[in-house]
Amino acid sequence: MKTEKEKMLNGEVFDVYNSQLVHERYYARKLVERFNALGEVNPEASKEIIRQLFGHVGENYEVHAQFKCDYGYNIYVGDDFFANYDCVMLDVSPIKIGKHCLLGPRVQLYTVNHPLDPKLRRNGAYGQGKEITIGDDVWIGGGAIICPGVTLGNNVIVGAGSVVTKSYGNNVIIAGNPAQVIKENPYKE
Amino acid sequence: MKTEKEKMLNGEVFDVYNSQLVHERYYARKLVERFNALGEVNPEASKEIIRQLFGHVGENYEVHAQFKCDYGYNIYVGDDFFANYDCVMLDVSPIKIGKHCLLGPRVQLYTVNHPLDPKLRRNGAYGQGKEITIGDDVWIGGGAIICPGVTLGNNVIVGAGSVVTKSYGNNVIIAGNPAQVIKENPYKE
Amino acid sequence: MKTEKEKMLNGEVFDVYNSQLVHERYYARKLVERFNALGEVNPEASKEIIRQLFGHVGENYEVHAQFKCDYGYNIYVGDDFFANYDCVMLDVSPIKIGKHCLLGPRVQLYTVNHPLDPKLRRNGAYGQGKEITIGDDVWIGGGAIICPGVTLGNNVIVGAGSVVTKSYGNNVIIAGNPAQVIKENPYKE
Repeated sequence: MKTEKEKMLNGEVFDVYNSQLVHERYYARKLVERFNALGEVNPEASKEIIRQLFGHVGENYEVHAQFKCDYGYNIYVGDDFFANYDCVMLDVSPIKIGKHCLLGPRVQLYTVNHPLDPKLRRNGAYGQGKEITIGDDVWIGGGAIICPGVTLGNNVIVGAGSVVTKSYGNNVIIAGNPAQVIKENPYKE
Repeated sequence: MKTEKEKMLNGEVFDVYNSQLVHERYYARKLVERFNALGEVNPEASKEIIRQLFGHVGENYEVHAQFKCDYGYNIYVGDDFFANYDCVMLDVSPIKIGKHCLLGPRVQLYTVNHPLDPKLRRNGAYGQGKEITIGDDVWIGGGAIICPGVTLGNNVIVGAGSVVTKSYGNNVIIAGNPAQVIKENPYKE
Repeated sequence: MKTEKEKMLNGEVFDVYNSQLVHERYYARKLVERFNALGEVNPEASKEIIRQLFGHVGENYEVHAQFKCDYGYNIYVGDDFFANYDCVMLDVSPIKIGKHCLLGPRVQLYTVNHPLDPKLRRNGAYGQGKEITIGDDVWIGGGAIICPGVTLGNNVIVGAGSVVTKSYGNNVIIAGNPAQVIKENPYKE
């Protein structure tokens, strides 16, 4: 029989209030609170907390307070990662981000959905995750939201305030709610 | 003659800088600051502040920091309420939320408008509220905004990042800016 | 030869990690952190930090925590300015706001872009700013985003959650993503 954590990581409906998961979120939140309390005064200490919190960091990474996430261990970022103020990553499923990515302020990456059946949203508050995968050289504008299950290719630019509900390939500039391709990027990878 | 608070609660144009209202917002903000300073370390103390702040809470409620509101006493939530990180409720008019509702991170419920006439927006900064009413089993996705005067029925799902400018009945999934019905929920209430 | 700061202020591509600019952002962030830590308990002390931080303030101004900006000295606001909770202003280029303006909670003013060429977004993370100019009597609804280079005239109302990607003249009400004129304001200036 699968544990609730195994179900969560497997993209199946899981119980949000399972005690192991509650405990893991609590652990992550304490790290996040320490990170956010540090603010900008001690960049090395801030980086050390992110290294402890995330599943993987590469060379060069910079995350600005007030950051929020659920578990942290499901967040994998490649070399040369920058996240500006107040980003949120609900990492019930893995969030995999390539190299040289820039996130503007208030970018929100959500891997978690809840069931359509209202009875299953009651009490236990069941969740169901879908992985987010982001390529290399992706720049996500401030306030944009990436929805569960979205994959973005390399060299994608996401306009500020976009809501990205489906996947896009390489070298496109997308914007709007829902986001659509507004043009090809003339600078290809 | 009506007080400015009576005008506010009655949905009439009111003076935002009326001293009673300034005082009430100040009182609420001090509670909100205590709540936000607690973070996640003491859920029972956090719940107690919310119980003091809100007009009504039911059985089981969970609100995550950093929460923001104007008065608090105009917020009424039914049993089994969950609000994730960083929600904002400008509760100049009542915000009534049914049972078993889930709010994603950064959901914003705004009951307050300002006059169209620019002269009335000067100095006194007049406001005018319209109630927000949300049914049972409603799930509002992360970053969504609910505008003044909106009523949502039961079992409504609001997509992440939606801007809801008008009212919708039961069992619909709405999304976009402005939000529109994208499908009926096959699981009815 | 121009310094990176001169390039930044001139709207040219500049190196975000130039040491002078890093130092200036660090100085601003320390002020911003002091401001945000104050919360609502001491409005006069809060106002004094904003006066020190901004390039210009007029008579009557009120900014609510948690405010964020990059430099501060590029923010110029006219008399009678109000910014509600959690606004973000990335002021790589000047942000000029007229008299009697109201910003709802979570309004985001972004003057900074990054190059379309992914090679120029790597390592140095080059930026390029475009000024934002906002007239008198403008009211920007909660959660709205103003993109680099936008100019708004007098008596413009921006709907909550709008993403404003181009400029508009006087006396219009704009909303949506991207924002478009939804009606003329019957109260002209």
